[in-house]
Amino acid sequence: MRQIFEAELTQLGDDLAAMSRLVEHAITNAGIALLTADLQLAETVIADDVAIDAIERDLDERCVHLLAQQQPVATDLRVVVSALRMSSTLERMGDLARHIAQVARRSYPRVAVPNALSGTFTEMHEAAVRVAKRTTAVLTTRDLEVAQSIERDDDLLDALHADTFTALLGVGWNGNPQETVDVTLLGRYYERFGDHGVSVARRVTFLVTGTFEDTRAGR
Amino acid sequence: MRQIFEAELTQLGDDLAAMSRLVEHAITNAGIALLTADLQLAETVIADDVAIDAIERDLDERCVHLLAQQQPVATDLRVVVSALRMSSTLERMGDLARHIAQVARRSYPRVAVPNALSGTFTEMHEAAVRVAKRTTAVLTTRDLEVAQSIERDDDLLDALHADTFTALLGVGWNGNPQETVDVTLLGRYYERFGDHGVSVARRVTFLVTGTFEDTRAGR
Repeated sequence: MRQIFEAELTQLGDDLAAMSRLVEHAITNAGIALLTADLQLAETVIADDVAIDAIERDLDERCVHLLAQQQPVATDLRVVVSALRMSSTLERMGDLARHIAQVARRSYPRVAVPNALSGTFTEMHEAAVRVAKRTTAVLTTRDLEVAQSIERDDDLLDALHADTFTALLGVGWNGNPQETVDVTLLGRYYERFGDHGVSVARRVTFLVTGTFEDTRAGR
Repeated sequence: MRQIFEAELTQLGDDLAAMSRLVEHAITNAGIALLTADLQLAETVIADDVAIDAIERDLDERCVHLLAQQQPVATDLRVVVSALRMSSTLERMGDLARHIAQVARRSYPRVAVPNALSGTFTEMHEAAVRVAKRTTAVLTTRDLEVAQSIERDDDLLDALHADTFTALLGVGWNGNPQETVDVTLLGRYYERFGDHGVSVARRVTFLVTGTFEDTRAGR
């Protein structure tokens, strides 16, 4: 019985990591679609989000079955409950990638990001991709240094998000309302990737160390 | 043992409903603060969000303890797992109310919502308050008609959200970038209340009927 349970727990971890890799893929491609006005890539991200949603539902069902059949306690219970939480965080990251792809699609053939902000959004994209890759890594290795590095990229995303407002509200801004709307929404979507990555990092840290740092306020 | 467990389950339901009432309060006051530029009320909403976050953590800990100590199966297990999910949804609704209050605070003494859109945002506020009240009601009574009515307000919020974009991108729009940014963010925050309300409504519906309608795409 214990052996079967161990195998099921391992499978749960593998599936979360696989889900995280799909999310990583979606974030990477959504950013490329956004920055290069690649309509086909945007459509792919939008279509593929259905698969991420399906994995979340499947993972959740399996967590409930595991709880019912194996009645785990202590650390095993925490692992299953954390998986429930993390699958929903990953699903949300997939949604955000889809939202970014939808902005790219709506703007096509125009690039949604105005020239003046392409540097900022390139940096946000790169930070979000790092967050996604490290989220997969932390799920796979439980390496707490990787978890820590997600916090740093979250801080960077917050700073870049603030930069977008500085640009939008500065005297030099001459974008039209559509551009202002797009930058506002895109900035928000990118900033949220950091929060979600941090959420996974802290849950994994909790599983390893048994202590849970408070979610920072102000999100 | 069973009797203690029943009492604990009832307590869990009561606490979720109490949390929902705090969220209802936050959404109501955030909207009033926003529409009337009431700085003090905005500050109250921002400060009180800490209490909602604390309830979420407390509820989550108790769910994990219940799972460990009572090892529930079947419907009881679903109730506990749903409580875990719903507390996180309610916490998110509290965050959104805080975000709205933060926009009101940043704009003070100006009203953040431009005159041209005060009708639309008044309607969004009213719909969000109804969603919040009905979320509490559905948690308390498990009335499926109430659950259904949350879906209708979610549709209304989506339509009103679309109206804000029509206004921002129409030829008549003469707001400055700050106003465009605020309307974009506020529209998004209000639209999300509907999604979260629907999420709670569907989880309760699932507990009552055993069938879970697919979350609608496109969020």
